[in-house]
Amino acid sequence: MTQSPKIKRSLSGIKSTGFPHLGNYLGMIQPAIDLQDDYEAFYFVADLHALTSVRDPKLMLESTHIITSYFLAFGLDVERAAFFRQSDIVDVPTLAWMLSCVTHMGMLERAHSYKAARDEGREKSINHGVFGYPVLMASDILIYDADVVPVGSDQIQHIEMTRDMAVRFNQAFGGEFLKLPEARVRENVATVPGIDGRKMSKSYGNEIQPLLPPKKLRKRIMSIETDSKTMEDPKDPDTCTVFALYSLFADAAELEAMRQNYLGGGYGYGHAKQALFEQMDAHFSPYREEFERLMAAPDHLEAVLARGAERVAPVVSDVMSRVRAATGLPTRR
Amino acid sequence: MTQSPKIKRSLSGIKSTGFPHLGNYLGMIQPAIDLQDDYEAFYFVADLHALTSVRDPKLMLESTHIITSYFLAFGLDVERAAFFRQSDIVDVPTLAWMLSCVTHMGMLERAHSYKAARDEGREKSINHGVFGYPVLMASDILIYDADVVPVGSDQIQHIEMTRDMAVRFNQAFGGEFLKLPEARVRENVATVPGIDGRKMSKSYGNEIQPLLPPKKLRKRIMSIETDSKTMEDPKDPDTCTVFALYSLFADAAELEAMRQNYLGGGYGYGHAKQALFEQMDAHFSPYREEFERLMAAPDHLEAVLARGAERVAPVVSDVMSRVRAATGLPTRR
Repeated sequence: MTQSPKIKRSLSGIKSTGFPHLGNYLGMIQPAIDLQDDYEAFYFVADLHALTSVRDPKLMLESTHIITSYFLAFGLDVERAAFFRQSDIVDVPTLAWMLSCVTHMGMLERAHSYKAARDEGREKSINHGVFGYPVLMASDILIYDADVVPVGSDQIQHIEMTRDMAVRFNQAFGGEFLKLPEARVRENVATVPGIDGRKMSKSYGNEIQPLLPPKKLRKRIMSIETDSKTMEDPKDPDTCTVFALYSLFADAAELEAMRQNYLGGGYGYGHAKQALFEQMDAHFSPYREEFERLMAAPDHLEAVLARGAERVAPVVSDVMSRVRAATGLPTRR
Repeated sequence: MTQSPKIKRSLSGIKSTGFPHLGNYLGMIQPAIDLQDDYEAFYFVADLHALTSVRDPKLMLESTHIITSYFLAFGLDVERAAFFRQSDIVDVPTLAWMLSCVTHMGMLERAHSYKAARDEGREKSINHGVFGYPVLMASDILIYDADVVPVGSDQIQHIEMTRDMAVRFNQAFGGEFLKLPEARVRENVATVPGIDGRKMSKSYGNEIQPLLPPKKLRKRIMSIETDSKTMEDPKDPDTCTVFALYSLFADAAELEAMRQNYLGGGYGYGHAKQALFEQMDAHFSPYREEFERLMAAPDHLEAVLARGAERVAPVVSDVMSRVRAATGLPTRR
């Protein structure tokens, strides 16, 4: 790994809760992978975070392998980037505890996720993991001396809270022990519609997984909701989910041809869906084959994750030495 | 360490916040040391807990050494018992995170320590460490498969919360992964008065440290508050702080003689204080010498703590393997 002081370090955390969908891929996974070109890129699969909701150990393990295989299949280069599992970095919860000791309750009560739960009257029955989530997330960032954290606009608050905790820690113990990260907000993220036309989201059950086997992918695409125009009718490309998805994969000429098909009539939604399937299948089948090959080799995936953990270990050790010395907790190991 | 299945394991945590006083010694330290005769006794210095308030790394380190030297001086036998530092057991905060994910906010809001802060209107400005304290404490207990936790009556709630978290974890993941500990409530604990007659407590500033050098010990004893009776007046032993403290160290004959001195008159508080000093000095001077010898050998203390951490490591490893398998977080190390 290049350790040039001029190259900034980026940190990306990915929740491990099953198969990513097209929106995840386009909005988060591919942009995250692209970071490896400009940064010393660290990635972790956030299995400790997933514990706030996942109660199935098989699902937990499999989800980590799915995420890892996705990133590798789509081009994550383990020669350049570090890809690892959150729970392998045993010091993360320790630093989170240290941060808890300088974090006022009032700050955590203002976190969007907790406020949402409270507004719904669930504040007694949500678990303490949900409430403490921002502290663990801050530890996840600060423990790697991250310079830059790419986030969606809904996560800016977490970075602000992380910076706030770092400042409080540094002030409490009198030194520059923790580095303040910068948020790098993802802009111009294409909104990807799901099969019902709403924003693609697991919670709506409208997602399309890009690496489905062809038969399943075709079946899923065929289930995209459209209006009830007959094949003969001219159609409006700009309000059609199929067209919107097609535009994500077709080149300009293909897209213009499809637009004319819509406007001209005599071209059914079934034709458009078939064209979308063919575009997606052509685009994703090499990745799918690589993904399937990786998923069939769990030992290789574990080796990749172990290598990632080894790579970040010196950084973690350095940060933990600083905060342990600052607080008076000696480093034994 | 005897690992006979018939010997139950006890766990004692000691906060590291400076020099213990006589009340700590009689009420907690000596009873805790006595556990080594009947249990496989584990003891840890709770430095992570101390972080909720301590902001001085030198004080943090020194406090750990003071507590360790106290226990060793008063007879803790490292051949039989395990004495270690909380922050050396890196998995404790990880298990605490796991427990957080099954612990409802409502339970933590009912904790006495948090309710007290809320009743005083400090619930926004207290730190998250104070709020999460019961979860870390539960991890401290459960990670050692402790059978028995000796507590004062004010701490019974913590053991109940610990059992509750263990039950919730076991239910959430479907197995008997965590052992439910029993509280062993200390009864008949002598109330030790401080120099102002109130219960001895650091927060009152009325404490007497038993291992003070003789001059300082004598000076502290001479500052015990008494009523304004003259030397000639008969005095009431049963309302006198000096007499109460004397009764903790004198044998029956000495105590009866002192009682007659009080009742007879012609015996001043200065005489009684001198007698108390002589009793305490005679009682504590061998321990004080050992304590001072230990404090002058920090490397030895660190070696003792390291040995303790090594001794409990297999137990921790066993428990963590169970909970990691239960949740789907693989064990790498």
